[in-house]
Amino acid sequence: MSRTVVENDIEDLAIGAAILGTGGGGDPYIGKLMAIDSIRKYGEVELLDPDAVPDDALIIPTAMMGAPTILIEKVPGGGEALQAMRKLEEYLGRKAYATMPIESGGVNSTIPFNVAARAGIPVVDADGMGRAFPELQMESFHIYGQSGTPMVIYDEKNNFCIVETADNLMLEQVARGITIRMGGDAHIAEYPMTGRDVKRTGIKRTISLGIRLGSVVRGVMGRDVDPMNGIMKITEDSDYGKAIVLFSGKIVDVERRTTAGFAVGRVIIEGYDQHNGKSLTVRFQNENLVAIMGKEVLATVPDLITILDSENGLPVTTEYLRYGSRVTVIGIPTPEIMRTPEAINVWGPKYFGYKDLEYVPLELLHKEYYAEAKLSREKEEKYGNFLRR
Amino acid sequence: MSRTVVENDIEDLAIGAAILGTGGGGDPYIGKLMAIDSIRKYGEVELLDPDAVPDDALIIPTAMMGAPTILIEKVPGGGEALQAMRKLEEYLGRKAYATMPIESGGVNSTIPFNVAARAGIPVVDADGMGRAFPELQMESFHIYGQSGTPMVIYDEKNNFCIVETADNLMLEQVARGITIRMGGDAHIAEYPMTGRDVKRTGIKRTISLGIRLGSVVRGVMGRDVDPMNGIMKITEDSDYGKAIVLFSGKIVDVERRTTAGFAVGRVIIEGYDQHNGKSLTVRFQNENLVAIMGKEVLATVPDLITILDSENGLPVTTEYLRYGSRVTVIGIPTPEIMRTPEAINVWGPKYFGYKDLEYVPLELLHKEYYAEAKLSREKEEKYGNFLRR
Repeated sequence: MSRTVVENDIEDLAIGAAILGTGGGGDPYIGKLMAIDSIRKYGEVELLDPDAVPDDALIIPTAMMGAPTILIEKVPGGGEALQAMRKLEEYLGRKAYATMPIESGGVNSTIPFNVAARAGIPVVDADGMGRAFPELQMESFHIYGQSGTPMVIYDEKNNFCIVETADNLMLEQVARGITIRMGGDAHIAEYPMTGRDVKRTGIKRTISLGIRLGSVVRGVMGRDVDPMNGIMKITEDSDYGKAIVLFSGKIVDVERRTTAGFAVGRVIIEGYDQHNGKSLTVRFQNENLVAIMGKEVLATVPDLITILDSENGLPVTTEYLRYGSRVTVIGIPTPEIMRTPEAINVWGPKYFGYKDLEYVPLELLHKEYYAEAKLSREKEEKYGNFLRR
Repeated sequence: MSRTVVENDIEDLAIGAAILGTGGGGDPYIGKLMAIDSIRKYGEVELLDPDAVPDDALIIPTAMMGAPTILIEKVPGGGEALQAMRKLEEYLGRKAYATMPIESGGVNSTIPFNVAARAGIPVVDADGMGRAFPELQMESFHIYGQSGTPMVIYDEKNNFCIVETADNLMLEQVARGITIRMGGDAHIAEYPMTGRDVKRTGIKRTISLGIRLGSVVRGVMGRDVDPMNGIMKITEDSDYGKAIVLFSGKIVDVERRTTAGFAVGRVIIEGYDQHNGKSLTVRFQNENLVAIMGKEVLATVPDLITILDSENGLPVTTEYLRYGSRVTVIGIPTPEIMRTPEAINVWGPKYFGYKDLEYVPLELLHKEYYAEAKLSREKEEKYGNFLRR
């Protein structure tokens, strides 16, 4: 279903997308401000259901690339992502019908709204990761055969590059190099494709899901109400699957280092309540990758592992993990399009260096819980008999 | 004067350009083979005098960028530089009237002949450095106001980037990053400009000078004849100025390290003959930068400091400096267009870190020698009275 996105929706989306962002995607604050500013100046934005996009329409996803932390010191003027799209339009000799995000996460969920408001075009309610991931080839677009190029990288000083590569791994290589030389972050327009391709390769309705998730968390803010019930209800009604509380406790150790442009590390959480006496380790590379309790794997990529502040349900991105914080770690199953063998090959635990960790869907790691949950049609077909026999 | 360039001229140019390359520009061998191969397949190339280029013609310089040593392991297919030019033509919506080199030096003097033979266009007898230099903004084109962009960088796997930057320093930054990500070297088309701009900003007739210099060295090869007289005669008749023997001796120490993609170091030469008991230090960053004997500065950038094998007069590039070799170090004054305050600002000794070294023209460092030399009209006006009073 298509709808109009207003200021308040962007406030919701900033939080909801950070839940889907599994610790990555950066602090959504600046992205949110830019999108709201553009909506105020240029008007509200239509959020277009992916099934409503004409098959032959040109869709150009827009985003930021690089270290999100740099945003704060190297503030963009606001028009860079639009410029990236404009340069790509010129190069292709064709105007974009709509833009869309490449991932769900802090900054990159709101950037397309900034672009769309300025350009007077819709945003397609879909993205290319269904969560956040650290590299450009970690896109469902890539997994299902789309070329990421021609791509445009545009910085706040109006430097830009148009990149065409033989494959998407080389695109990540070259684009990462350019981004570093541009000072660590830049705006991009990439994976230009048709409406038909968006329907075939995109992770659908992640923006409206993000808005709903953010809305339930914001709705209980300041009140002594646990947002988990709302989060469970909303995810259960989506293509994802019902969120599960994996662990709750206090952060007792955070290790984080910057390696080759990524924030890599782990957080150790000591349990309370039903997890008293136990300890959970969540490992991350920008995004949370695996959650392990003792020898028991509780969740792995690509399923979502999100750390929420136990006080208010707000998602905690990796850079804000602090000793002493009380947190609730939740898991959210991903849609089946994110779990095919081709997809697991690109963003499963092995790609991130966990050589002896096979991907097992979250539902099968927690059978009792999911035996009682409502499953999407696709998940019911795949796991229903197994969970409920 | 325009002329036709045949295989034998390329053999000469490979050596002559390395003399002008002052130790840098890499081993000319592969560049020479590619150019000769293209001339055999596609025909001889017209070398166009810069004054004969129509004012409004589009000229696109072509070159290689990166570490020349990598060429040997990552052999180009031969068509990459032409592809770089073609992509730039498409982007500009206009065909090149001719190509030209960006510098005089091993590989980059012959690359444009490879491109020109394949494209069936002339090469302009000029370049943008009048020697070799390590960075993209060290171009007379840049010094006299031309933009280096739009630029195309193209690799042997058909990956390419079109780059536009706010200034040429940023171009060097971004293009260097791309080249590294492409594996260390790549082919480029940059500084697209009009015939009028070439005449205004180019260092003229450096290719024909290179061919003449190479010819005199090759002419005496295998015979017990010193090529220095020929080199002196040819340079004396050019816009450069008569070559001077600065030092002759035996290499007793070579220090060379690779820093940020550059070969940086120094060679120490112990004198014989008239330099008996003395020692010369030549410091280099890819190219030779300063020649110092004790406390006496014998030559600095941008004037040419070239190390020749004393046996046969062949130029020795920095990567081939070896303990025990007997060498003759020569200086060649540069044309006045390379010595203006704007030019010295970009490629004088201070830019390379010699903070207390003022640039003094070679002629003034060796007054007695140059008082007796024939000077070009420009040099006569500038130094004649001073040298001959």
